[in-house]
Amino acid sequence: MTALPALREDDIVAAIAAIVGSPSHGRVRLGIGDDAALWQPSRSHRSAITTDALIEDVHFSRATMSLSEAGRRAIAASSSDLAAMGARPVLATVALGVPAGAALEETLELFRGMATQARLDGLAIVGGDLTRSPLWMLSITAVGEVRPSNVKTRSGARPGDILAVTGPLGASRAGLEVAQRSLPLDATLAAEALQAHRTPAPRLREGRFLAASQHVTAMMDCSDGLSTDLARLCAAGDCGALLERVPVAACAVAVASALGTDAEHFALSGGEDYELLVAIRPRAFEHLASRFVARFGRPLEYLGIVSRERAINWSRNGRIEPMQRSGWDHFAS
Amino acid sequence: MTALPALREDDIVAAIAAIVGSPSHGRVRLGIGDDAALWQPSRSHRSAITTDALIEDVHFSRATMSLSEAGRRAIAASSSDLAAMGARPVLATVALGVPAGAALEETLELFRGMATQARLDGLAIVGGDLTRSPLWMLSITAVGEVRPSNVKTRSGARPGDILAVTGPLGASRAGLEVAQRSLPLDATLAAEALQAHRTPAPRLREGRFLAASQHVTAMMDCSDGLSTDLARLCAAGDCGALLERVPVAACAVAVASALGTDAEHFALSGGEDYELLVAIRPRAFEHLASRFVARFGRPLEYLGIVSRERAINWSRNGRIEPMQRSGWDHFAS
Repeated sequence: MTALPALREDDIVAAIAAIVGSPSHGRVRLGIGDDAALWQPSRSHRSAITTDALIEDVHFSRATMSLSEAGRRAIAASSSDLAAMGARPVLATVALGVPAGAALEETLELFRGMATQARLDGLAIVGGDLTRSPLWMLSITAVGEVRPSNVKTRSGARPGDILAVTGPLGASRAGLEVAQRSLPLDATLAAEALQAHRTPAPRLREGRFLAASQHVTAMMDCSDGLSTDLARLCAAGDCGALLERVPVAACAVAVASALGTDAEHFALSGGEDYELLVAIRPRAFEHLASRFVARFGRPLEYLGIVSRERAINWSRNGRIEPMQRSGWDHFAS
Repeated sequence: MTALPALREDDIVAAIAAIVGSPSHGRVRLGIGDDAALWQPSRSHRSAITTDALIEDVHFSRATMSLSEAGRRAIAASSSDLAAMGARPVLATVALGVPAGAALEETLELFRGMATQARLDGLAIVGGDLTRSPLWMLSITAVGEVRPSNVKTRSGARPGDILAVTGPLGASRAGLEVAQRSLPLDATLAAEALQAHRTPAPRLREGRFLAASQHVTAMMDCSDGLSTDLARLCAAGDCGALLERVPVAACAVAVASALGTDAEHFALSGGEDYELLVAIRPRAFEHLASRFVARFGRPLEYLGIVSRERAINWSRNGRIEPMQRSGWDHFAS
């Protein structure tokens, strides 16, 4: 008897998409498979919708994060999906499972965290469902709006496009390490890492800025680790990539060094950084990057180029080698 | 030391609404507390959004229902919330928690059930999130559209209005009893009860029909048991009710009789019947009820009248007595 091959989340999603079928009415403009789905409430408007689940001991642990921080992070993750569509957040609903032993105050603490982030992001929390559950379980759906001409999906990257991210990666994973153990670290870098893990900031303004450029051909958020997210962008665009540079956050470099491990691994596999991954027409990159740094005070980080060949290769130490996909996958073995 | 009083779900929701605050922008037209929230994507359009969680061993048991049926019922519950706003379903997102031991085929079975009901209701399943979870956990968000003039909330009932439901109640709870034990029952009635429990039909056409009448002053779905739902309708409208009649489904009467229990209890406390509860201006009731029966082939069931006094009373066996609230509440002790 041979073991069944482990299925990747993407394969399961593909099987689900086949069952669910194509949307039966023209109002739905984009279905399963992107950061958010899109529909058309009226001819001149597009709404984006995204759903994320956050489950205790799967997505977060109370040992490394308060309930208030878990609430903030859950809203930030939803806002990040809207940012990746170029959308402006409008509202969110929350399904919350509360363990039997929980105090009312704990439920309210979670909502205080969600309300704080929702105010920062311009989201109104408008409803939801409250239920008993074996452990803390949170499912957030967020809706945003985007001008039809500004919609960016994962699938538009073309060979020759420049790949970039809105900030260096790996900080969230570094923060998890800091929360889990005592490390000899500079206090400022330790605090930066913890903040990136516990209260990440969605790139909403950056998302709208990039979405407004006709030279941005694809956009998604980088929440499952660059190796997984880049593979998804390339699969959606039926292309490949040559990765020439992995921008790593300074705090991630420090944490990796303290642990004696590889900082690039945090960026490629860690996930939950919520930076935006974009493909940009090559002739427009330099101008857009200079406008980006002027606007946001930090660089649009160069990663590499989109290739016709579907493989994802990594130019490293003078050699080009295939990149392993090592990001977060709930269903891989 | 005295024990803390048990909080009702409604009290917790009120505390959450205070934390979350009022929506910061005018696009949101209706927030926490109704069957769905409403927003305004453009001047002439209203969108409705609703979220429901379904957790194994809390909301359903695999001993009494297949995963496919649980999926169907979860979509039906969301559609029912849209029906209660007078909305036409557009799309849904699904957050699914999959237990570690589950086979891919089980996940797909759940989605087949959801896809079946979504097709019946006109909902496109457009996305969501897939995660590991200690048990099956499903959170569905559905979006619908309603003409601004047709929106019905819970809060419009006025003294003198007639209270009615779109069908007799108690069948779902009767079906749960049939699924759990062997009862001496007519096979047709047993099948009816099981169907009501496992694959309930949301009253979408009825909801749109009633929403189109300016004489319908309030509407909600009757999913937590009539005693709880009527109390919510009255609290939202700052009024009370005199309940004169509890319409009970024939299969619920038969099951209650086989169990030697009270069939009205199934209707008042059982929940998950997904009929619509409406308040109607008294002069319009007769005409609307006759159009309803002509259109749908079954009566709009009279319940009683809305009173100025806030109490909910029940006229029963020639006496008027206060009605106890006995419906489903996740948080009451």
